Amino acid sequence: TQSTWDPLENYTLGKKDAQPEKDGSVQSRLARMKEVYLKEGRRRSVEAVLLVTCHNHPHILLLQIGNSFFKLPGGKLKPGESEIEGMKRKLTQKIGSTLDEQVPAWDIGDLLSTWWRPNFETYQQYPYIPPHITKPKECKKLYLVRLPERCVFAIPKNFKLVAVPLFEVYDNAQRFGPIIASLPQVLSRINFNQIGS
Amino acid sequence: TQSTWDPLENYTLGKKDAQPEKDGSVQSRLARMKEVYLKEGRRRSVEAVLLVTCHNHPHILLLQIGNSFFKLPGGKLKPGESEIEGMKRKLTQKIGSTLDEQVPAWDIGDLLSTWWRPNFETYQQYPYIPPHITKPKECKKLYLVRLPERCVFAIPKNFKLVAVPLFEVYDNAQRFGPIIASLPQVLSRINFNQIGS
Ligand SMILES: [Zn+2]
Ligand SMILES: [Zn+2]
Ligand SMILES: [Zn+2]
Ligand SMILES: [Zn+2]
Repeated sequence: TQSTWDPLENYTLGKKDAQPEKDGSVQSRLARMKEVYLKEGRRRSVEAVLLVTCHNHPHILLLQIGNSFFKLPGGKLKPGESEIEGMKRKLTQKIGSTLDEQVPAWDIGDLLSTWWRPNFETYQQYPYIPPHITKPKECKKLYLVRLPERCVFAIPKNFKLVAVPLFEVYDNAQRFGPIIASLPQVLSRINFNQIGS
Repeated sequence: TQSTWDPLENYTLGKKDAQPEKDGSVQSRLARMKEVYLKEGRRRSVEAVLLVTCHNHPHILLLQIGNSFFKLPGGKLKPGESEIEGMKRKLTQKIGSTLDEQVPAWDIGDLLSTWWRPNFETYQQYPYIPPHITKPKECKKLYLVRLPERCVFAIPKNFKLVAVPLFEVYDNAQRFGPIIASLPQVLSRINFNQIGS
């Protein structure tokens, strides 16, 4: 491995205005989610797993906030919005160029995993509906997004876009959280034209 | 949850002759795998994830050896054998009735995950080809197998067949190993007609 945190050689990274988090703390975020839930019902959200291969290793693109926190691009769907439409809207909002003609035709692929939030008391989410939960509060779906060979992104000033190799994410829930840390297992059914597969 | 280790109410469990492990230790197992590798090339193996729903919770069927070790039914493919044919052969051998007419027409479904063994020095396997490994020694594929509503199994005397709920397997690599422990994440894209999905 030349470097485990590769520059994205084939992608042009522009900057755009910061997109500050709406909430100052996990507690206030959960409180806001609960408020919206009482009005709109179950929260539906989508996140994109953007795969790139560099130095022959598959990498996923993550948004990094500060030096520690990582997330997948995505967010909450609007009431009635389809998952595919919402995923495209969120990708454009989070990482798309501010010039319409530079925004790629996002190619939303396979559903990779589904995570359920049983309540707003903790931040815990599970890859199944936990026992005896009849009204899960959120359903989050992760979709594979294949990128064109070259493209232009614009990243909000308060984020960095980093390409992290699968082997660095594997078994590393402490750093990446349980959802991102399980992507290697979840992606393993997909053939990336790796050596020997 | 009435009981986390459910009896398999809809399945008839017979017994058949014991199928003792070929190797007395992990070391001798790795040595034997290496020997076969030198003759046959990369080991190809398949394992079945048999899903059943009981008390509204999805469970997976595991073979239990003694009180501690769990495994999925499956094993090594013969040279030239297809994954689907090999999976059916292994299911019949491991858990199928000894009466041909009672063996279900195994319904081999989606590929769920793929695990790679880089060498025979340790028992480690990864859900990707580790960096700079050009000749992985084994490729193991896990397939979803949907069971008919009722069926007859025959379990070798030295095993027990147990139904373990997904929530008990989740995040429990210590007990079930990394491959089985990641099944909840890997299965989460599949709709089991759960409440609310
Ligand atoms: Zn490398
Ligand atoms: Zn690299
Ligand atoms: Zn229950
Ligand atoms: Zn049960």
